[in-house]
Amino acid sequence: MNHKSDTPVTVIGLGLMGQALAGAFLRGGHPTTVWNRTASKADKLAAEGARPAPTAADALRASPLTIVCVTDYRAVHELLGADDAALDGTTLINLTSGTSAQAREAARWAGRRGARYLDGAIMAVPPAIGTDEAVILHSGPQADFEAHRSTLGALGAVTYLGADHGLASLYDVAGLAMMWSVLNAWLQGTAMLRTAGVDAATYAPFAQRIAAGVAEWLPGYAEQIDSGSFPAEVSALETDVRAMAHLIEESEAVGVSAELPKMIKAMADRSIAAGHGGEQYPVLIEEFGRPSTG
Amino acid sequence: MNHKSDTPVTVIGLGLMGQALAGAFLRGGHPTTVWNRTASKADKLAAEGARPAPTAADALRASPLTIVCVTDYRAVHELLGADDAALDGTTLINLTSGTSAQAREAARWAGRRGARYLDGAIMAVPPAIGTDEAVILHSGPQADFEAHRSTLGALGAVTYLGADHGLASLYDVAGLAMMWSVLNAWLQGTAMLRTAGVDAATYAPFAQRIAAGVAEWLPGYAEQIDSGSFPAEVSALETDVRAMAHLIEESEAVGVSAELPKMIKAMADRSIAAGHGGEQYPVLIEEFGRPSTG
Ligand SMILES: NC(=O)c1ccc[n+]([C@@H]2O[C@H](COP(=O)([O-])OP(=O)(O)OC[C@H]3O[C@@H](n4cnc5c(N)ncnc54)[C@H](OP(=O)(O)O)[C@@H]3O)[C@@H](O)[C@H]2O)c1
Ligand SMILES: NC(=O)c1ccc[n+]([C@@H]2O[C@H](COP(=O)([O-])OP(=O)(O)OC[C@H]3O[C@@H](n4cnc5c(N)ncnc54)[C@H](OP(=O)(O)O)[C@@H]3O)[C@@H](O)[C@H]2O)c1
Repeated sequence: MNHKSDTPVTVIGLGLMGQALAGAFLRGGHPTTVWNRTASKADKLAAEGARPAPTAADALRASPLTIVCVTDYRAVHELLGADDAALDGTTLINLTSGTSAQAREAARWAGRRGARYLDGAIMAVPPAIGTDEAVILHSGPQADFEAHRSTLGALGAVTYLGADHGLASLYDVAGLAMMWSVLNAWLQGTAMLRTAGVDAATYAPFAQRIAAGVAEWLPGYAEQIDSGSFPAEVSALETDVRAMAHLIEESEAVGVSAELPKMIKAMADRSIAAGHGGEQYPVLIEEFGRPSTG
Repeated sequence: MNHKSDTPVTVIGLGLMGQALAGAFLRGGHPTTVWNRTASKADKLAAEGARPAPTAADALRASPLTIVCVTDYRAVHELLGADDAALDGTTLINLTSGTSAQAREAARWAGRRGARYLDGAIMAVPPAIGTDEAVILHSGPQADFEAHRSTLGALGAVTYLGADHGLASLYDVAGLAMMWSVLNAWLQGTAMLRTAGVDAATYAPFAQRIAAGVAEWLPGYAEQIDSGSFPAEVSALETDVRAMAHLIEESEAVGVSAELPKMIKAMADRSIAAGHGGEQYPVLIEEFGRPSTG
């Protein structure tokens, strides 16, 4: 990763993640100011060359760019609200997890105080920070992102999503939904195969190939969604549900959970009931796009 | 694909899939005998060089290897039960979809009639048959598979899973669970991003990368399952559920379905309630491995 390593940065919030972020900036050669509510969490970083600031406002004033990473948005507002003046003219990148609505609201709040604001989301665990494994999503004004792209490069694979401040949060949770879904489907299959004496290590490469293979269909399927037309080029939903019934039957027969299989079929059944049995799987976007009851 | 193209084969069942199978054998140069309950479905294949047999028993006797592909196992037993003698000494590969129990029972049934039996599952649509895209799973005695591997190669990417006749069905539905889970997670994310004006084509490559990336973790996670020990090397379940709550909150806030997010969290909550909050995600195998209520 290539970045201007003399750019000063500030990191506010030195929990597990904040410490990893500050550590990556230090390793990247950046003069790094840090602040944490519980001051002792700055000790290790100070020994590595970080400069602990006495107050959050001092920390904000120390660098043109400040990264905030605390528990939640309430904490962000609490700790930054104390001295509004310190925000004026600075660039704030908030990597705290939250919702898209919280991100948009924080952007307005920061804007009223004269700060440039980007919202971000970290799709990585602390030990991955500073490596290309760490995907860090950003949204907000593109010029503000570009101004700091090289500095942010010290943290990992930084990605810009668009001007809407809510995008980082949305992509983050959408990506997590994919992560848990792949893991759950793998666990479902592993549980089934174990009843036949197949160990998890034997089954895993098969599940891996299927997941990666199906992932390749997504761009093509996306065209159906964007065009709003779902011809059954490969398979019709009413054919799919017969195989879904097999999955449920097999899960119950071998004595594993049928909860995931039943949810899969329930979604498809609802779409068929709505008249889409002759269409292709992505027509289910209509079910996913509407609020669920209960 | 490399196979002895002079080996005679029989295909019984000429629905959409059976016609594709017979067509692939013909293209591979195999003398191909066919039979279907409704005889007219053999006409097109006969014009391409296939030999229609007058009865299923005649079809079985015409080749040392017979592929059966009909609606379900009931149909298999109905059509093959008429003349038991025709099964003696032949090799039967049943590519009809069913459960592992049906496959094991059919193997015993065929064995009593003197036939060698392999059970299979087709993870492909008819137009893909004959290409490397068509994954065709086989289970049963390995020697019987090896004896016909090169002939079967005319159908697609043939895979041998093990001696237990139930394996092909189990891997098949496990793979389908992965397929629908990846698609559902992608639809969930697409629905969420669309509320922010992001189209499906823009989001799809992101979902694709996450799915393929997470799939790479599976072999490593499998080691935890096989060893029965789930140290939180990357993240603990009680940390994960906080992000699951974000996913639910965000889904509800933007007005899309929260059904999939809620199922994800419910599974994790149950595992935490069982005392696994400090362990890592694959510990959920205990939830997936037990029958669900209702
Ligand atoms: N850890 C991960 O694997 C991971 C991965 C992706 C994203 N994230 C996100 O990163 C953020 C931080 O996570 P973490 O793992 O670093 O959490 P953590 O270890 O629990 O640290 C929380 C931090 O927030 C500070 N804080 C909380 N309330 C505060 C308040 N009212 N005023 C000032 N400071 C306050 C804490 O200060 P004190 O030290 O004084 O308590 C501490 O520095 C979260 O939004 C999390 O979702 C974490
Ligand atoms: N099509 C796919 O995309 C696909 C993909 C993977 C797996 N499969 C599996 O492949 C198998 C066949 O599917 P398909 O698409 O070919 O189905 P299909 O087009 O509906 O054809 C069904 C076949 O079964 C025959 N049949 C049904 N009951 C019978 C009985 N009692 N006696 C004799 N023959 C009988 C039918 O004969 P008649 O012509 O006389 O009715 C016909 O040849 C199924 O198990 C299916 O799950 C299909």
